Amino acid sequence: MTFIRNRWYIAAWDGEVANKPISRKICGEPIVMYRKLDGSVVALRDACPHRLLPLSMGMREGDNIRCMYHGMLVGPDGTPEEMPQVHERVNKKVCTPSYGVVEKFRYIWVWIGDQEKADETKIPNFWPCDSEGWVFDGGYMHVACDYRLFIDNLMDLTHETYVHAGSIGQKELKEAPLETVVDGDKVTLSRWIPNISPPPFWRDALQKDVPVDRWQICEFIEPCSVHIDVGVSPVENGDTIESHDSGVRGFVVDSMTPETETTCHYFWGMVRNFRIEDQGLTDRIKNGQFKIFSEDIDILEGQQISIADNPDMALRVLSIDSGGTHARRVIEKLMKVENG
Amino acid sequence: MTFIRNRWYIAAWDGEVANKPISRKICGEPIVMYRKLDGSVVALRDACPHRLLPLSMGMREGDNIRCMYHGMLVGPDGTPEEMPQVHERVNKKVCTPSYGVVEKFRYIWVWIGDQEKADETKIPNFWPCDSEGWVFDGGYMHVACDYRLFIDNLMDLTHETYVHAGSIGQKELKEAPLETVVDGDKVTLSRWIPNISPPPFWRDALQKDVPVDRWQICEFIEPCSVHIDVGVSPVENGDTIESHDSGVRGFVVDSMTPETETTCHYFWGMVRNFRIEDQGLTDRIKNGQFKIFSEDIDILEGQQISIADNPDMALRVLSIDSGGTHARRVIEKLMKVENG
Amino acid sequence: MTFIRNRWYIAAWDGEVANKPISRKICGEPIVMYRKLDGSVVALRDACPHRLLPLSMGMREGDNIRCMYHGMLVGPDGTPEEMPQVHERVNKKVCTPSYGVVEKFRYIWVWIGDQEKADETKIPNFWPCDSEGWVFDGGYMHVACDYRLFIDNLMDLTHETYVHAGSIGQKELKEAPLETVVDGDKVTLSRWIPNISPPPFWRDALQKDVPVDRWQICEFIEPCSVHIDVGVSPVENGDTIESHDSGVRGFVVDSMTPETETTCHYFWGMVRNFRIEDQGLTDRIKNGQFKIFSEDIDILEGQQISIADNPDMALRVLSIDSGGTHARRVIEKLMKVENG
Repeated sequence: MTFIRNRWYIAAWDGEVANKPISRKICGEPIVMYRKLDGSVVALRDACPHRLLPLSMGMREGDNIRCMYHGMLVGPDGTPEEMPQVHERVNKKVCTPSYGVVEKFRYIWVWIGDQEKADETKIPNFWPCDSEGWVFDGGYMHVACDYRLFIDNLMDLTHETYVHAGSIGQKELKEAPLETVVDGDKVTLSRWIPNISPPPFWRDALQKDVPVDRWQICEFIEPCSVHIDVGVSPVENGDTIESHDSGVRGFVVDSMTPETETTCHYFWGMVRNFRIEDQGLTDRIKNGQFKIFSEDIDILEGQQISIADNPDMALRVLSIDSGGTHARRVIEKLMKVENG
Repeated sequence: MTFIRNRWYIAAWDGEVANKPISRKICGEPIVMYRKLDGSVVALRDACPHRLLPLSMGMREGDNIRCMYHGMLVGPDGTPEEMPQVHERVNKKVCTPSYGVVEKFRYIWVWIGDQEKADETKIPNFWPCDSEGWVFDGGYMHVACDYRLFIDNLMDLTHETYVHAGSIGQKELKEAPLETVVDGDKVTLSRWIPNISPPPFWRDALQKDVPVDRWQICEFIEPCSVHIDVGVSPVENGDTIESHDSGVRGFVVDSMTPETETTCHYFWGMVRNFRIEDQGLTDRIKNGQFKIFSEDIDILEGQQISIADNPDMALRVLSIDSGGTHARRVIEKLMKVENG
Repeated sequence: MTFIRNRWYIAAWDGEVANKPISRKICGEPIVMYRKLDGSVVALRDACPHRLLPLSMGMREGDNIRCMYHGMLVGPDGTPEEMPQVHERVNKKVCTPSYGVVEKFRYIWVWIGDQEKADETKIPNFWPCDSEGWVFDGGYMHVACDYRLFIDNLMDLTHETYVHAGSIGQKELKEAPLETVVDGDKVTLSRWIPNISPPPFWRDALQKDVPVDRWQICEFIEPCSVHIDVGVSPVENGDTIESHDSGVRGFVVDSMTPETETTCHYFWGMVRNFRIEDQGLTDRIKNGQFKIFSEDIDILEGQQISIADNPDMALRVLSIDSGGTHARRVIEKLMKVENG
């Protein structure tokens, strides 16, 4: 097993789940999701408790879903509301597993593992994703790699120079010193680049061309998210790595939910606190991210295949891998805790 | 193993096997079939006894088949008639397994398992399929499911309401009481619906619109067939579930030969005793069955995938599953007998 | 394991390897090849020693290759020239396996197995492939079969009658007596057909129509090559099987490098000593070989599938299989030697 089970995982964007059922495999378990009439989301194992036909092939009726094989009507808690045989007594023991599910920070979160341990307060705090003064958008991609390879990728930004040579790669970034801080289960990788000329994207964001301090702070949020605090602030404002809200700021918000041991669901996006009413800018950022993350996916899927093809070779840890290495250690430690 | 080996299995329709060899995997064994000059059918393992090239890639010569690799000429009993080297002494020990094969009831039957046990009298009695006064036609489909899932499907007709909602599903059927009878290795599931107005198909068949008694009698015939006796008879004739030949009657004739543990060959058709000269009606029935069985296959292939994806969930047995459950018990019992 | 590891294997034609990296799996190991500025060839494991991204996805710089993930610059010996982090000290222990590589007889040969044993003098002698007075051309095909099935195929020419019925198959060949000679690790299969009328191809080569002696001498050259000495000579010249250079002569030059246990790389061609300036003839021979070898591949891939599908049947050895059987024995013996 390569992932922690007793955790909240992002299963979908809020916009992906509607009245019609949607199926997605999370941590190896096929899950069907749909919205009830009141808009709240249901998450069930995607298998009728009777003969296992995927419920996602079924038909919605009220807050229930009817299996299209023998017509068992399954309620939002996974227990039958009607048996296939019309007058048969409803047997609530013939039920499909249901999952704790919460809609928060624009995502649908499901709790995998022991359902009695599902506790909404354990959802990680993605605060900018639903705060006043911020705007958040992004997308979804399926990726054929172990989710931990993706964490490695995001916890190190030197790869930008090569993977994203044609878009966001910049020499100054590579030369700025990196600091890695491990605080409990939190791993942070920081770069503070003082007094530089802002690159085009950030100059446009700031709407003036003055010397700025720039930062990139990657934070690993277990079990499978990386948020990157990015932005610039005029030098005269005197911002610091601890406090930098006087300029323009955003977070690259990435979560890689395991699908299987070698595939994952990639939820990516950006949340920002500048020009938040500008939908055109929101779209341009989203299109830009789509291109950049597609470049990462080519690399990650190539890496996954190569790992399988070269069983005698190990992933080596160099200084730039410090962030990903610490993140993997956190995951391993938490898996050991989980498995006793 | 999920199937009984010492049995006759349908390997093809009579029309599928001609002079040119045809290959089909039956119970995991690749088999090549062709007709001899006298029209009788040969069934051999589809591998040249020399270097295993499929004989189905070969060329027919008289009643033999010549391997297209080194030219060994293999006779209809699987032994060589000529060796690859022209003047080499024929060695009858270098042979490919041959199968007991019988053409009966419009099918080509092959005996899998111990060939010395092949006994033509053990072929199940599909009597209407070659009786005077009856006409029989149907088709073939490859299905990616365990053949036993298909037996479950056919030994329960409540699924018609959902799977075939747009074609043959009807409320009255679902409400009629079901009777399951197990008699040795025979499992029968019966519905008798007295004194109803005939539905369009049967009214047209009867060619008058009078109150009728209607029946549906599913019979499991081991190892892998289900015949469904269907029809209507005017109430005034006084037909019964034991004897109902005074109206119009047909059998849905279905056999699901295992190909592998998770795939099967589906031979489907209808044999009827009314308007038997009407080839247009025969074609319309066949086209209708094709559509209906395609709906079943969508369900069955979805179910097979879901079973693999949900290893922690079991198929549950409800009252409507009685027919399939008894059929599976017969199969299990016979497998135990076979394996001693 | 089905192949010997401590051997030189053909990995590519000389024309396939250029400045741009090319990747090919040899004996299960992904290998990247490219030419240095001086034209010599580099062969490395196709995985960056850092995080295993295929180096073949990288970018050439001078004689090095830069990984496109984090930018490690890998030298032609597999050790880093630059680390991903700009000022990090180069650690030569973080390296990727490199392979002995030699360009000879128009092929790129790589040494698989223990690199300290790589000895250029062990490359088999394909003398006509770079001798004065001879011209050599051919092509490459990927084949989904165990390379030993291909050796069987080439060490027996009776299959020509069937597999190549429409092209080079001829009755006279099949009737000529065959002689198999095993001399150490060399297996030779010879046919000498005295005093016949030359077939069209050889009459055109000879450029006169006189009675000829004809020969076909298949030689297995371990670990995976078969050369077939073919030609005709006017009877009056008195050529013999030991010495036959007074007429027209060629070699069919075939090497089947294992890719995996069930797939191989097929390098095929012809080298000849007549009309060597005639490029049109060279092309026509190459096109003819392409057609003929495609016929073999259909057979070999069918045979490979059939072997997997018929685990209860064994490859039988008849008199015509003597050549292949001896070749397989040589391989087995050498594998035993290798494994101690």
